[in-house]
Amino acid sequence: MYTLHHLPLSAPCRKIRIVLGEKALDFELRPQGLSRRDSEGFAGTPVGDVPILTDDEGMTLSDAAAIAEYLDEEHPVPALYPGTATARAEIRRLIGWFAGSFNEEVTRCLVGEKVLKHQLGQGSPDSRSIHSGHENIHRHLEYATSLLDRRKWLAGEVFSASDIAASAHLSCLDYLDDVPWADYPVVKEWYARIKSRPSFRAILADRLPGQPPPPHYTDLDF
Amino acid sequence: MYTLHHLPLSAPCRKIRIVLGEKALDFELRPQGLSRRDSEGFAGTPVGDVPILTDDEGMTLSDAAAIAEYLDEEHPVPALYPGTATARAEIRRLIGWFAGSFNEEVTRCLVGEKVLKHQLGQGSPDSRSIHSGHENIHRHLEYATSLLDRRKWLAGEVFSASDIAASAHLSCLDYLDDVPWADYPVVKEWYARIKSRPSFRAILADRLPGQPPPPHYTDLDF
Repeated sequence: MYTLHHLPLSAPCRKIRIVLGEKALDFELRPQGLSRRDSEGFAGTPVGDVPILTDDEGMTLSDAAAIAEYLDEEHPVPALYPGTATARAEIRRLIGWFAGSFNEEVTRCLVGEKVLKHQLGQGSPDSRSIHSGHENIHRHLEYATSLLDRRKWLAGEVFSASDIAASAHLSCLDYLDDVPWADYPVVKEWYARIKSRPSFRAILADRLPGQPPPPHYTDLDF
Repeated sequence: MYTLHHLPLSAPCRKIRIVLGEKALDFELRPQGLSRRDSEGFAGTPVGDVPILTDDEGMTLSDAAAIAEYLDEEHPVPALYPGTATARAEIRRLIGWFAGSFNEEVTRCLVGEKVLKHQLGQGSPDSRSIHSGHENIHRHLEYATSLLDRRKWLAGEVFSASDIAASAHLSCLDYLDDVPWADYPVVKEWYARIKSRPSFRAILADRLPGQPPPPHYTDLDF
């Protein structure tokens, strides 16, 4: 059985939880201690952050992109990187978008400043970063709209790991009520479809002590 | 035939040039215009940065990780992600290390500040960033040493895309004479092996106008 070491409001961790759920794999979820050093103890590496996936045979994997590809290779049904090499490149490009610029310009500015920084004892939120996050999210949601205007799912006609990556980030932001859904109805409709998937149930059940989500967070018809 | 749109001292672009070289694929190299808008014109996306790979049939791919995996799927020999799912996860973890924390803590601080910022007309180098880059590189080279102490190549006994990712970053830094090779003989020996590969020749021939590399940059026995 797999064990996933995670933080509840970490987008890359949520991505792996959803992948495990889509593959209907049994796993134990273990909240990571909140000091960075704690997670470094694992792999002893500068890249030892959660998510970290272990199994009963002593395997230890880190890096969300690597773990997701591993799970797809070991448990190929349902395929989360489906299609031709070109289609898979598009899926991976979109995953790179969320792990890269979306994370840096939006998730880190909002979830990072408001939640993780506090949890990690790294001081108080930087209001300029938060302001940037609120500004930047529009450009990204406009781009998501332009994709979803012509596609059923982000990378094409089939649900893929890119939808998982995107919804992992948006779900963390939504917990903080930081997604301007009303301005982006096409993205909202896509997210509502993802919210209703069984793999998303545990994500919607997450609660931070003393910091409840807005009522629409769990509402499937929000 | 493929066309690679690139910048000479961009580590992700060099990564794709080396992958194309390892696969012995014919390609045209086209220097990207230096405004960000220029590259955005391509894909019209917030992730439209170089490297961008196109072919004669109108295919356009972006994101270095996605392009490298695409090339490996379409041209499987020699395999650059060889081995079991676990071995491939290790290769991808190391690629994520260089694209993520190494890039953020080292490459961006040094190559970004000294070269790309100037080329992109984004002002003068930030000396604090440069100082951080010089400090941070040690922790990363120590970690690389700990891997290469027990492995022939970064991810194991076989040359892989992780060696390409790492050497792409180090070659950009080396052009600026920013790698403290003398302190890390194990990493230096590994890099010397990579430098002598035919796929690396074009990288070593790169010259920035008015900014020559140090003499050891092209020396195979540096």
